[in-house]
Amino acid sequence: MSNLSVVAAEPRSIRLSPKDNVVVAVDEIEKGKLAAGGIAANARVTRGHKMAVAPIAVGQPVLKFGQIIGFATEEIAPGDWVHEHNTSMGEFDRDYEFAAGAKNDEVLPVEARATFQGYRRANGKSGTRNYIGILTSVNCSASVARFMAEAVTKSGILAQYPNIDGIIPFVHGTGCGMAAKGEGFDILKRTQWGYATNPNLAGVLLVGLGCEVFQISRMKELYNIVESDTFRTMTIQDTGGTRKTIEAGVAAIKEMLPKANDVRRETISASELILALQCGGSDGYSGITANPALGAAVDLLVKHGGTGILSETPEIYGAEHLLTRRAVNREVGEKLVSRIKWWEEYAARNGGEMNNNPSPGNKAGGLTTILEKSLGAAAKGGTTNLTAVYEYAEPVTAKGFVFMDTPGYDPVSATGQVAGGANILCFTTGRGSAYGCKPTPSIKLATNTPMYQRMVEDMDINCGDILDGVTVQEKGQEIFELILRVASGEQSKSEQLGYGDNEFVPWQIGATM
Amino acid sequence: MSNLSVVAAEPRSIRLSPKDNVVVAVDEIEKGKLAAGGIAANARVTRGHKMAVAPIAVGQPVLKFGQIIGFATEEIAPGDWVHEHNTSMGEFDRDYEFAAGAKNDEVLPVEARATFQGYRRANGKSGTRNYIGILTSVNCSASVARFMAEAVTKSGILAQYPNIDGIIPFVHGTGCGMAAKGEGFDILKRTQWGYATNPNLAGVLLVGLGCEVFQISRMKELYNIVESDTFRTMTIQDTGGTRKTIEAGVAAIKEMLPKANDVRRETISASELILALQCGGSDGYSGITANPALGAAVDLLVKHGGTGILSETPEIYGAEHLLTRRAVNREVGEKLVSRIKWWEEYAARNGGEMNNNPSPGNKAGGLTTILEKSLGAAAKGGTTNLTAVYEYAEPVTAKGFVFMDTPGYDPVSATGQVAGGANILCFTTGRGSAYGCKPTPSIKLATNTPMYQRMVEDMDINCGDILDGVTVQEKGQEIFELILRVASGEQSKSEQLGYGDNEFVPWQIGATM
Ligand SMILES: [Ca+2]
Ligand SMILES: [Ca+2]
Ligand SMILES: [Ca+2]
Ligand SMILES: [Ca+2]
Ligand SMILES: [Ca+2]
Repeated sequence: MSNLSVVAAEPRSIRLSPKDNVVVAVDEIEKGKLAAGGIAANARVTRGHKMAVAPIAVGQPVLKFGQIIGFATEEIAPGDWVHEHNTSMGEFDRDYEFAAGAKNDEVLPVEARATFQGYRRANGKSGTRNYIGILTSVNCSASVARFMAEAVTKSGILAQYPNIDGIIPFVHGTGCGMAAKGEGFDILKRTQWGYATNPNLAGVLLVGLGCEVFQISRMKELYNIVESDTFRTMTIQDTGGTRKTIEAGVAAIKEMLPKANDVRRETISASELILALQCGGSDGYSGITANPALGAAVDLLVKHGGTGILSETPEIYGAEHLLTRRAVNREVGEKLVSRIKWWEEYAARNGGEMNNNPSPGNKAGGLTTILEKSLGAAAKGGTTNLTAVYEYAEPVTAKGFVFMDTPGYDPVSATGQVAGGANILCFTTGRGSAYGCKPTPSIKLATNTPMYQRMVEDMDINCGDILDGVTVQEKGQEIFELILRVASGEQSKSEQLGYGDNEFVPWQIGATM
Repeated sequence: MSNLSVVAAEPRSIRLSPKDNVVVAVDEIEKGKLAAGGIAANARVTRGHKMAVAPIAVGQPVLKFGQIIGFATEEIAPGDWVHEHNTSMGEFDRDYEFAAGAKNDEVLPVEARATFQGYRRANGKSGTRNYIGILTSVNCSASVARFMAEAVTKSGILAQYPNIDGIIPFVHGTGCGMAAKGEGFDILKRTQWGYATNPNLAGVLLVGLGCEVFQISRMKELYNIVESDTFRTMTIQDTGGTRKTIEAGVAAIKEMLPKANDVRRETISASELILALQCGGSDGYSGITANPALGAAVDLLVKHGGTGILSETPEIYGAEHLLTRRAVNREVGEKLVSRIKWWEEYAARNGGEMNNNPSPGNKAGGLTTILEKSLGAAAKGGTTNLTAVYEYAEPVTAKGFVFMDTPGYDPVSATGQVAGGANILCFTTGRGSAYGCKPTPSIKLATNTPMYQRMVEDMDINCGDILDGVTVQEKGQEIFELILRVASGEQSKSEQLGYGDNEFVPWQIGATM
């Protein structure tokens, strides 16, 4: 076993990165006890709190997750309890230090990269699944979309087209009673078009009512959409009502089937994977098991040339400095800061405020600074440079570690990422989220063993064993390997259970009129 | 044929109420031509514009829909074209005149009231349908709810329980990533509880994930909910994952079936009907055919002791004076005004504004004042006193004509009304909405004959024939009779088509975090 991560003998502790100068106590470490591989504790360190494993001079950074969570305000010796009394944010939060921490991330040469078995699309993108999607411009066409999907599926015709994974009705609650321009409209527009072009869809039917604010004709114009044998649109009003529209939709989909089925998985570089990162139902273990392990997997994916998308802006709020430091350049960092400012206005105009300071409860649990708290969420993103920042549902084109601005609410956040082109998704959960997605397979990572065992049919990987000695790096490797297998067609647990037909939830901004 | 409504000989015109001193031109009326039963036009009156059919002295009201749309600014003679040049709002818009127009509406004695065949519930409410509902606290339990409904339905067990209309999964996109208090939370809370207690549901299972903001335990506490053989709750996290939760949910529903089936339709007074009023996909005919006809039906329903709920606040904005005049008392009127002010703030904080003034296009089409424009929408509410004003999803307990504050967006508006207890719904449409609802049957009223013919499978009644001589009162009677038949079990078109499993859309207010 490596010297990283847990020292399994009691009292257990975790070192989250080889760079760290602190460990996190998994069991309480009594004063004088040897912990973290033989360091005597100079004070009692309770569960979730930090103990120094190296000397830290005044003003020097305290490192957890391989990243700065604060600075020593007095000399810290190995074995010292590290918390508010000897650590603070210092001046760190007053400076974005754009790109100050950017480095030359190692990316393997093309021939050394891992591969998966995926679908090469005509536009050069790569898919991990092969669905046909029925998009809806408005809630008013939701039922018709479901009836179409049901009719095609029940007809049995899909048996003749074994390469098609299914028909997905993407229904939602918006599309009308909204402003016909502005950020709410733009978000819906990008989301719809992002789904329409996600490489996991082989064909798309977009169905509307006809009189809705979100006009299909306008969207076609905006994106120069030309109807083809794998892209069709219709409205209930033009087609003459519900039954005729269902018939026309079923016919349109049946026409798509031969072409949609005419695909074969081929060997594709892992650099074509666009991995959406999610967490939901977090617990006290999220930041020390599943999130860092997923971060290690992202570091691997980036090394193999791929892309990882961190999101959930409210959860990294207050620690944006850590991401701006990692930005490849000032422009990328500034784009993140502008989104942070947007969120402050968004919260304010809705009568709330952004507030991510460690609460008294957080502090009692061992979180010393806002940086440390947000790093627990941001740990999913690993440690490489931040190469790009995207608004909600913008197409993700950069390689490496990127950020997309989304709410923290899981289905809304993931919808933005899938619209951005994510073809695979990893979701950490402590309480036990059952989230599944279509068309993008979702891999579920449990933060703790008891929940994993209780919900084993929903969870793909148990990261709780990091508390028992599995290293974060080992777990990251395990996750990376499962990503490649699921990308190649192995079903994730949520796919086996059939999730994904109810989780398309575009972010709604603005008044519902 | 009565002297009301259309004079079928060309040029056709419509008198919308026996009280009106103007008619609306259906065909262009040339100067000098006889129209409206023999009155010579003193000027050309184009389609949609108004011609006087009685003298109107300076300062006297111009009446359309039986209501004031403005005041004569010069002497108006029969045959005169009535528009901006001789009519204005005057001082009318500066005074709410609370209850100034309230009157003693005729309500038939109990023994003279119409009846329907409905379900008498233990709490005294009356249902028109007999469903079991699966409510979801959050999007994260949406798939599980659908799987449960599907499993029960596919099992074939419902064949043993012929009095049950089906299992409805009420799924939606919210319930987390929201503030745990405030108006957004309150709205969701009222909506959920309103559905849970709608008399068209015989049993309810409420299923959550477990860690969401909208906590089931909190809701149970708020409403003193006790679990019973027809009300059960569960969460995926407590139950141990997706499969176990589906099993437990299916078992819980199966346990409800015998009791839910043990009902019989009985004769119930029309005074127990709570009719939701909706319009969507409006056109130039909405305000002169289907909406006034529905208003006539509401007047009948109110006469028989029942309740009609007008909503869609943005569409009556600017003409709230007409409703405050009809208020039974100042308090009811003031509640409406406070909601109007709320909307102004809501629009402003979302970067928009309320604006319902007749546009140049509206004016060219014949709409003279904002009152007239909004009356086209408000005409659905008939002419009786406004007896109560409700916030979104509040329980509707008053009899007579009431208002519930909702957006104009159909599914969101109707969701509030059904949460308020509506057990029947009428929906006017010009462009051709296909809206259907569960658990509350939706009756669709076409504003024009061409659309009715094109979408006859979706439309229950054609109000377009008002342009051909059917009176508004006759059409109102036809609608009222269909309301009674559908309330008694006759399926509306949207029920025949299977609508209603995708139209539960609670109003979301506030930031998605
Ligand atoms: Ca700061
Ligand atoms: Ca999270
Ligand atoms: Ca989340
Ligand atoms: Ca309307
Ligand atoms: Ca409407």
